[in-house]
Amino acid sequence: MRNLTEHNITEAVLNTLNSDNARLNQILTGLVKHLHAFVREVELTEEEWLAAIQFLTRTGQMCDDERQEFILLSDTLGASILVDAINNRKDEAATPSTVLGPFHREGAAEVEHQHNIAGEGTAGEPVIVSGRVTAPNGEPIAGALLDIWQASAEGFYDIQDESQPEMNLRCKLRTDERGRFAFRTIKPSSYPIPDDGPVGDMLRALNRHPYRPAHVHFIITAEGYEPVVTHIFVDGDPYLDSDAVFGVKSALIAEFVRHDSAEEAEQYGVAAPFFTVRYNFVLQPRDRRDTS
Amino acid sequence: MRNLTEHNITEAVLNTLNSDNARLNQILTGLVKHLHAFVREVELTEEEWLAAIQFLTRTGQMCDDERQEFILLSDTLGASILVDAINNRKDEAATPSTVLGPFHREGAAEVEHQHNIAGEGTAGEPVIVSGRVTAPNGEPIAGALLDIWQASAEGFYDIQDESQPEMNLRCKLRTDERGRFAFRTIKPSSYPIPDDGPVGDMLRALNRHPYRPAHVHFIITAEGYEPVVTHIFVDGDPYLDSDAVFGVKSALIAEFVRHDSAEEAEQYGVAAPFFTVRYNFVLQPRDRRDTS
Repeated sequence: MRNLTEHNITEAVLNTLNSDNARLNQILTGLVKHLHAFVREVELTEEEWLAAIQFLTRTGQMCDDERQEFILLSDTLGASILVDAINNRKDEAATPSTVLGPFHREGAAEVEHQHNIAGEGTAGEPVIVSGRVTAPNGEPIAGALLDIWQASAEGFYDIQDESQPEMNLRCKLRTDERGRFAFRTIKPSSYPIPDDGPVGDMLRALNRHPYRPAHVHFIITAEGYEPVVTHIFVDGDPYLDSDAVFGVKSALIAEFVRHDSAEEAEQYGVAAPFFTVRYNFVLQPRDRRDTS
Repeated sequence: MRNLTEHNITEAVLNTLNSDNARLNQILTGLVKHLHAFVREVELTEEEWLAAIQFLTRTGQMCDDERQEFILLSDTLGASILVDAINNRKDEAATPSTVLGPFHREGAAEVEHQHNIAGEGTAGEPVIVSGRVTAPNGEPIAGALLDIWQASAEGFYDIQDESQPEMNLRCKLRTDERGRFAFRTIKPSSYPIPDDGPVGDMLRALNRHPYRPAHVHFIITAEGYEPVVTHIFVDGDPYLDSDAVFGVKSALIAEFVRHDSAEEAEQYGVAAPFFTVRYNFVLQPRDRRDTS
């Protein structure tokens, strides 16, 4: 292993991938081949290589308990939604998955139906979300667990915004015996992904905006079914066709129906105007996954 | 741009690369194509994706003023030497380049010939390095600037080792009118690249050792010639055929000749045993670069 040139370096590196873990060798073989092919294809200069090193370093150093810049990078380069697609091949009837994003938090409290997840002082238009979780044949799934999170009307998650109560706009809910769930929240807004770091610099250099269309996140799990990581998007949002992280699927867009009647609002114990949205999730049974 | 699948996501991302900088579009086009092809080829799972995100984050967070873990990652995956090879295509007569590594520092002092770069308290066997810098036709290059750095006999660069004087084992030298240079130092040792971070974890997982064969670094610049970033390696080193960063070239290996005579040592003002090494650098003239 001497005198390596642009023509034989790749093979030399591949020969050093001798893990006892065959899968690690397989992944690194793919990585080295594609990394080298990329460098060769674009004939990366030494200055560009150093700029890449510095970009990756800044990306790592932007990360902390509340910020995951490498997930943003993966999301904005379409890698996250690709990994999602490869790992969640489903029947058409099942609710499609989309990106997890960097703002999920473990430990949201399980609440009763009709709970309002918008805590004290959370401004925004009231929304009542309800629906069912079913199998593809329409059979209700009782006891499915929904892990739910969203940004405020200003477009910030609790961990980005000190003015919000701890664990604001997050909860877990279980479906009842008829597969139903219901909770209250405020209407989410489209918002820019954090763009004061290297990923923001990249988007600006590419003349790309950093916005995501308004959405509510869900992870739904139920025994005997594939878990689904997904969103409900707000119909009519101006960014539905240019989501900065490529996550929109038509089947995930829901109509947020506006109600202006003060009487109707009173029935729900909210102020008018308010919105209702119904969405039914369909889970893919385990072991019947169509991986074709 | 909705309903993106594993089959159309790559094209959708490529359509968002709209920089005013054509070269940036070209580089990111290559990056996105190869990143996506890698994910598809190995069918990266969601757990593996998250492990990769965490690995890259740790790599960035390992970096500081004295540690560049992303350069180590690039070096150990053979990307650095590939970039070097692509950007330094030369005539065979010219001294080959090799990796810069993460330990170069700006600002080394220019010293006189015969200066000893091993500062106060630097243990090690004395070495007298001398040689010439010439054009491929043997014509001496006067006034060429050599920027020189190396690790201690214990295998640590000054910035890794508080016991060394500031800027220890570093200097700049200019060739005289006959293209000659000479300096004194201590014999370098093979050493492990820093392996207490994610790159070290990767090497262990691959059953790879972290060692580099003993070497002295040089960057040589002269008006009218291509600069060269290179090393002199110590002949006989046990790691010449398994350099952790793939940098060894036969033309860069030099014999460190041992001298045991006390009288000879006295002539040089050192203690026996000591070593002498002669190495001639050949620079590639600018604008006559063979890029075939």
